[in-house]
Amino acid sequence: MADPERIRRVAGHVRREVEAGHEVAVVVSAMAGETDRLVGLAHAAAKDHQGLLDAREYDAIVATGECVTAGQLALTLQDMGLSARSWSGWQIPVLTSNVHGAARIQRIDTRLLEERLAQGQIPVITGFQGLADDNRVTTLGRGGSDTSAVAIAAALRADRCDIYTDVDGVYTTDPRMVPRARKIERIAFEEMLEMASLGAKVLQTRSVELAKTQGVRVQVLTSFADPAAPIAGTLVCDEDEIVEHLAVSGIAYSRNEAKVTLVRVKDRPGVSGRIFRLLADAGINVDMIVQAVSVDGLSTDMTFTVARDKLVRARDLLERARAEVAYETLVADQGVAKVSVIGVGMRSHEGVAARMFETLGKRGINIQAISTSEIKISVLIEDSHTQEAVQALHTAFGLDTDG
Amino acid sequence: MADPERIRRVAGHVRREVEAGHEVAVVVSAMAGETDRLVGLAHAAAKDHQGLLDAREYDAIVATGECVTAGQLALTLQDMGLSARSWSGWQIPVLTSNVHGAARIQRIDTRLLEERLAQGQIPVITGFQGLADDNRVTTLGRGGSDTSAVAIAAALRADRCDIYTDVDGVYTTDPRMVPRARKIERIAFEEMLEMASLGAKVLQTRSVELAKTQGVRVQVLTSFADPAAPIAGTLVCDEDEIVEHLAVSGIAYSRNEAKVTLVRVKDRPGVSGRIFRLLADAGINVDMIVQAVSVDGLSTDMTFTVARDKLVRARDLLERARAEVAYETLVADQGVAKVSVIGVGMRSHEGVAARMFETLGKRGINIQAISTSEIKISVLIEDSHTQEAVQALHTAFGLDTDG
Repeated sequence: MADPERIRRVAGHVRREVEAGHEVAVVVSAMAGETDRLVGLAHAAAKDHQGLLDAREYDAIVATGECVTAGQLALTLQDMGLSARSWSGWQIPVLTSNVHGAARIQRIDTRLLEERLAQGQIPVITGFQGLADDNRVTTLGRGGSDTSAVAIAAALRADRCDIYTDVDGVYTTDPRMVPRARKIERIAFEEMLEMASLGAKVLQTRSVELAKTQGVRVQVLTSFADPAAPIAGTLVCDEDEIVEHLAVSGIAYSRNEAKVTLVRVKDRPGVSGRIFRLLADAGINVDMIVQAVSVDGLSTDMTFTVARDKLVRARDLLERARAEVAYETLVADQGVAKVSVIGVGMRSHEGVAARMFETLGKRGINIQAISTSEIKISVLIEDSHTQEAVQALHTAFGLDTDG
Repeated sequence: MADPERIRRVAGHVRREVEAGHEVAVVVSAMAGETDRLVGLAHAAAKDHQGLLDAREYDAIVATGECVTAGQLALTLQDMGLSARSWSGWQIPVLTSNVHGAARIQRIDTRLLEERLAQGQIPVITGFQGLADDNRVTTLGRGGSDTSAVAIAAALRADRCDIYTDVDGVYTTDPRMVPRARKIERIAFEEMLEMASLGAKVLQTRSVELAKTQGVRVQVLTSFADPAAPIAGTLVCDEDEIVEHLAVSGIAYSRNEAKVTLVRVKDRPGVSGRIFRLLADAGINVDMIVQAVSVDGLSTDMTFTVARDKLVRARDLLERARAEVAYETLVADQGVAKVSVIGVGMRSHEGVAARMFETLGKRGINIQAISTSEIKISVLIEDSHTQEAVQALHTAFGLDTDG
């Protein structure tokens, strides 16, 4: 949500759905920039605390952004002659855990909403927030409005959850990198989850997880479209709803990667456990892991990736634990990227991995590590080859638009 | 309340009181300009409605301003090492009528506050708002934070309600007009009510009325003072708490006046009733009324005052009702001001009116109308004489500072 103009456009989309005969409940986020402004005010008030902000007060301050938008949208809908009423998370209530700043939705009381919907009124609900058992407002963490929308759609057993965002759908890959990227009409929950967690920033991972668990069909649409014209986005749904599956539905990439290699680690039981326990305790997620086969039976090389902004901390930890972990040298490399092909069709199509490796091989792109899941193959390559790799894979798996 | 700097200063005042051994609950208003910004957002969202805003949504939007300040002040107090927690009106709850936008406080549940105070925690409460029986947030109307503070002080049976504002107390008259105006140490509720309603904009009239009814002593202080230094403001209290009463405690004036004279109104029963019913039904308050004695027994002149911004409407109404009311001409005059002397001491001091009229008479200032109450005498004079009149009365009633 942004300025009054954009609120008016969103209201237009709501009106179109209502006029098409749907019962509509709306979940709103704060205006663009508003949450940042409120976070800034909270930090300014506790300037001596250096980041250790009381999460209850943080929530009380930051949650006001959605209350303003909800009131505004209700007013704009009324202005268009529709019956609408804003509701805060605490009024519904949307009950959450009491982990302030990162609460999880536990239960949504739908009585008030169902009552209002039955009266022909459009409830406009604040996303991103709820009420904990201490009677205080909680927030769900950044991007939580998507999760609120899906949770409320699930609670109301809605036919569909439409998410209006600043992109017009989910693409086969990043259109800024591959001009022939195509908008996907339907994508399975599992595929969307891989796309989301691999860097396609359309929907919050949490909201897709929830949609999958609760079986809520999610439509991604752009709020910038003309409300009067018919709009088509991407439907995120159960794979059974998708008639024909390509082997690969999309290509994702992430440049937020760094590679660490521990050279000549003593090859004895428990060593890798110690390494990864050390990192896990420091909150550092390890993604791809490759352990070379020990040649001499005495030592081996161990390679893994971490998020790029965690590299310095990971290296520090490992260098301090050098005696314990017993390796010869540590090599860190920030110049890597992860490229993934994703598709539930992989389960029934043979040779996806082979085609992927051949495609990259033909271009002389070296694969530094591989990880796979049932519906995804990821490779680690040199960062400078990212665009070439994504483009080549996009063509090789038949995803290019005709135009 | 304004920027983080000012919040920090207010927090300093709170700390000083806590360190002096007091139990303190704080009521906050929104940051300077914030309520106006939120009102603007509400109006922008309903731009086609031309002022007919849904009051429930207006309240939901506008009430967020205090939630932000309350959270900020709680964080700043925590930053100073104090235990503090913010509470919104709906959390306490502060129960109000459901007249959205102008609600009245009906009942305050003090259990939560007393529990927290007993634990040594400082509750920081949003002023200006409460919760109606429809489970929606209400606001009390502009300036309602003073009223909230007094109501909460009354509910907690507090020894005193300190109101931090942008002036350092109540003065014998407007110091911008009379440089020798003196800060009043103690003023009776009744006097403060007259001062407030006559244009001394220190406290909201409603809050003083409530303080009087509930017997809450109110101290007016400036938030701009250095929290470390001892500060003295004005105590608004029962007149029994004031040892010696001057005949006059203060001089108030109002330039928001306009005078209407109906010349040669038919002198028959019911005429004045019709005139003032007409104005009352249009929401126009009439203040001073002077009816000349009928000379010929057939007609009389009728003079009264209205707020200056209501003059055009009043004149329109009376001109359209001319046949019915039966007067000859209507004379309107915007160049008038009301000057009042106020003091509970008037009850026991004789000759206050005489001294007031003599003082003005000696300066050739003509008195156009007079109205009195038990503790106040008001006169209507030409606006251009306002400063001279206030200054002369201030001296005549012994209110000038020595310096």
